[in-house]
Amino acid sequence: MKAANIDIEISEVGPRDGLQSIKPIMATADKKRWISALAEAGMPEIEVGSFVPAKILPQLADTAELVAYARSIPDLTVAVLVPNYRGAEGAVTAGAHKITIPLSVSETHSLKNVRRTHAQMLDEVRKIRELINTLPVDERPVFEGGLSTAFGCTLEGNVPESKVISIAEQLIEAGCDEVGISDTTGFGTPNQVTSMTKGIWAAVGKDKLTGIHLHNTRGQGLANVMAALEVGLTTIDSSMAGIGGCPFAPGASGNIITEDLVFLLEGMGLKTGIQFERLMQARQILRDSLPADVELYGFTPDAGLPKGFTMATPQV
Amino acid sequence: MKAANIDIEISEVGPRDGLQSIKPIMATADKKRWISALAEAGMPEIEVGSFVPAKILPQLADTAELVAYARSIPDLTVAVLVPNYRGAEGAVTAGAHKITIPLSVSETHSLKNVRRTHAQMLDEVRKIRELINTLPVDERPVFEGGLSTAFGCTLEGNVPESKVISIAEQLIEAGCDEVGISDTTGFGTPNQVTSMTKGIWAAVGKDKLTGIHLHNTRGQGLANVMAALEVGLTTIDSSMAGIGGCPFAPGASGNIITEDLVFLLEGMGLKTGIQFERLMQARQILRDSLPADVELYGFTPDAGLPKGFTMATPQV
Repeated sequence: MKAANIDIEISEVGPRDGLQSIKPIMATADKKRWISALAEAGMPEIEVGSFVPAKILPQLADTAELVAYARSIPDLTVAVLVPNYRGAEGAVTAGAHKITIPLSVSETHSLKNVRRTHAQMLDEVRKIRELINTLPVDERPVFEGGLSTAFGCTLEGNVPESKVISIAEQLIEAGCDEVGISDTTGFGTPNQVTSMTKGIWAAVGKDKLTGIHLHNTRGQGLANVMAALEVGLTTIDSSMAGIGGCPFAPGASGNIITEDLVFLLEGMGLKTGIQFERLMQARQILRDSLPADVELYGFTPDAGLPKGFTMATPQV
Repeated sequence: MKAANIDIEISEVGPRDGLQSIKPIMATADKKRWISALAEAGMPEIEVGSFVPAKILPQLADTAELVAYARSIPDLTVAVLVPNYRGAEGAVTAGAHKITIPLSVSETHSLKNVRRTHAQMLDEVRKIRELINTLPVDERPVFEGGLSTAFGCTLEGNVPESKVISIAEQLIEAGCDEVGISDTTGFGTPNQVTSMTKGIWAAVGKDKLTGIHLHNTRGQGLANVMAALEVGLTTIDSSMAGIGGCPFAPGASGNIITEDLVFLLEGMGLKTGIQFERLMQARQILRDSLPADVELYGFTPDAGLPKGFTMATPQV
């Protein structure tokens, strides 16, 4: 749901995908301050957490409270991840604006990640659709199916594009409003981004795939963003300071870095709506809220914006 | 001078641009083993050193010996940097195949880097051309003018594109065979890559600009490579393990990483001629030849190529 005054929407996944692989628990009050600072920097969408059992991911146990808090921030799309129907119940109750259920195109990864087959996951999707449909139309969250391991799997290896497209079709049929493609394992190449996007568009319609979730596992994150921009995707997930990744895919880590993504997009004249100085303030809150031995990434924060650089988004 | 069996030529600048900012001196014998290993991995061009006074850069004092050694490797283009006429004399005497003289488009940077104005640098270029012309035609090295700080300067800030184009014209007029664009400071954006390349092509001809030298200072290296590929540049400088950068530009550091560039290009179906396993062996030689506290970079070496990944270049 891209706002009119921005060209490319960044969806900040740090509070969910970033924090989920960080052991020391960030205090809920700190998370709220961080989310507020991100929103004040102009971030249009923030994935604030995941409705998973607290015993599996204690870091995200405060998701319901964070959704309620983030909903009070004007103009912010509050997104959450849900692994299943039970999670979606929590998300709907809390009032999330957007719910993403990940389905690993690699069934081996799906079983390992959420202990469910494709058929079982699609059943969950259908039940979640029914749940959403009990809400008044204007209160229904956007329901996205995330195509995890779409670019390949550390367990299965290659994931055929035809399989990704087929799962995309099944997710839409089962009741998702849209799908997103996700390079869970950092296997992705620019050609895959282009080809897969076009393939899914041909199958389910261009309006049903607008976003991509990339990892920087092999340093290809922003190169893959270039392919995403070229083909015409308009929402890019990223994580402040590049924290996180998928803890269930061995060897895979590293979301793309929000700060560097902002510089890339703004340097291309694409408005993100972000105030860069305020983004740095949000980064400082994250730094202050995590133990010093949790590493933060980001080239642009270290080097600073180039001397004489002008953001495409007016800085106020 | 791209070979017929490769799509994109990587010019490995590690032995020069990489090592020049590393204090501990790598033994000449180790450099020879490294250069040989790089060539055996299929690297078509290696910048083996710079003909600068040993007192300024003791790390590169063995450049003449390395040129002589590298010339004995079949099919390898042996490139060197020269700061001035005196350096070019050394390069010509040693028998380098390619000589690059950097000219900082930012005159402030030029004065700081080589203590010369543009006019003085162009005089050097003319004298070098005369020197080269004393050689038999088939023994003349390719003479490149490197457009340093073309994307902006840490001292001057913005560098107007018109100035870059004008300097490119003057370099060709003064006797360079070709020019290369260089993001010395890591300010570059994809739009600049595209626009500057087209501007220079329009001024001096498409055959006179084929290469680009990018830094990863703000994490944009491979995104800028994407723009370079899209516009049609065919030679990309990179440094094994991302070592180096420009020690004279405050805050600027970090060449793009050869190993990650190879994965990017091969993943796009673009043949580099590289044997990946042998490239990893060359990396090991570099690791073994430098003190353990010299940091090596590279995401792909850490993560490995994706399971099931097939290089475009046939692996033998």
